[in-house]
Formats: sequence, structure tokens, C-alpha cells
Amino acid sequence: MAAYDPDNIFAKILRGEIPATRVYEDDETLAFMDIMPRSDGHLLVIPKTPCRNLLDASPAQLAAVTATVQKLAIAVAKAFDADGVTVQQFNEAAGGQEVFHLHFHILPRQEDVAMRPPGKMGDFDLIAQHAEKIKAALA
Amino acid sequence: MAAYDPDNIFAKILRGEIPATRVYEDDETLAFMDIMPRSDGHLLVIPKTPCRNLLDASPAQLAAVTATVQKLAIAVAKAFDADGVTVQQFNEAAGGQEVFHLHFHILPRQEDVAMRPPGKMGDFDLIAQHAEKIKAALA
Repeated sequence: MAAYDPDNIFAKILRGEIPATRVYEDDETLAFMDIMPRSDGHLLVIPKTPCRNLLDASPAQLAAVTATVQKLAIAVAKAFDADGVTVQQFNEAAGGQEVFHLHFHILPRQEDVAMRPPGKMGDFDLIAQHAEKIKAALA
Repeated sequence: MAAYDPDNIFAKILRGEIPATRVYEDDETLAFMDIMPRSDGHLLVIPKTPCRNLLDASPAQLAAVTATVQKLAIAVAKAFDADGVTVQQFNEAAGGQEVFHLHFHILPRQEDVAMRPPGKMGDFDLIAQHAEKIKAALA
């Protein structure tokens, strides 16, 4: 496995070098909207400290991130009155990973609505509206 | 969300009422092979205590299961000399869940090999061979 690259885009988001639509953070984790949402409300949860993925995460990073994943899964289910929630976590390119900073995808799902194909940029106004719904559900 | 159904098939596996090809267990969690593997080495990690999915898991259940998920993700990467690992966790039918006892899917992945379609029964001898490779990697 390659070393952690501090110039990956999530590291840049953590340093405030590029923007993100943040919905939640605590001392150890950050949740923000995916800019290529495969469902309305699709967000990402990451640790604030560097690790490449699940294969090199420390027990403390893993525990913090998964606690936030659960919190946000419950929040999006409420925010979107979702019928289900899909969680995905990809390790290395062959496993589906595109940004090499540990992250979990959380996708609220509705019955009979397929996930949209990957790689299509979302509407930023709509993503911002969805972020507000999630923040309200967390409040 | 519906109540936990103690007659789900993973509860039956935990009670020993139906067989499973087990690869790892500790006091709180069990890992066993998926009988419809979408990649060679596809396995599942579950808590030994009842919860329906991520939306109702206790912090203790979540912490125990995700620690085992990490352990097994590392083990399958080693066992199959995998190029990556895909982790999936489905909540409610609309989220992709088919058995209503919390579980994480762990799929070792190879470059340029797509996941097989869901729902196709695997070859039991081959699954048993894969389980032995994973147990050896854990040893």
C-alpha cells in the first residue's frame, strides 16, 4: 500500500484550502456533502487525522469515524424520511477508492429509486439545501 | 423501523441452527463466508447480540463489529494478495439489506475484476477453500 499523500483533496478540505459543504464535525471527524451525489443527501465521513483507508487506520481513528458514520446515517434517515441507508467504504483503487484519505459514504435511499451512476457532478444549490436538512436533523 | 426478528438467518447461524463457514469469532462478533460471493473471499461480519442494522446498533456493538471488520479486511487483503477491499453495509430493504441482523460485507478485490452480480449461489468447496486461506492469513 502506498504512503499517505497529504495533498489528497480531503486533506485540503481539512486544511481549509478547498471548500466543502460541511454538515457535522467534532474533534476527531468531519462530515461533508459528496459533490457527485449518487442519492440526495449523499455525504462522506472522514477522520481529521491522516490515514489512507481502513487498512492502515488506527483503532482510535476507526472508532471515531464509525461513531460519526452511525450518527450521520441516523440523521440522513430522518432528514430525508429515507426508507433505507447504504454505507460504502472503499480501499485502494481496485476496491473503488478515488481519494486516498479514509472515508465512508453514507447514502439515504428511497424505495424503488436506484443510486445514480458515479462521477456526475451534482447541483450545488441542491446539495446546499440537502446539507441544511441534515444539519436540522442533527440539531 | 421494524423490530428485530430473532428468526432471521444470521440469528439462526449464531444459534447453530443452520450451518455457516466460519472464519473468525470473538466474544462479541462472528465472521463467516457469504454463500453468494460477489468476489472470491466475500465474507460477512456480524455482532453476536441482536440488532437490526446500523440505525439501532449500540455503541458497543458498533465498536466491536467495526474492529472485526478492520481485522478481516486486512486478513482478506493478505489472503488473496488483493489489490483492494470493498466494504458495504446496508440498512433496510431500500438500502440493500436482505437479512435484518447488522452485517458488514467485506469483498477482496482484484484490479480490473468487476464484482459478480448479486444473488448467485457460490461453489461450496471453493468457498471452503477461500475460508481456509483467510484463516491462515489471520493465524
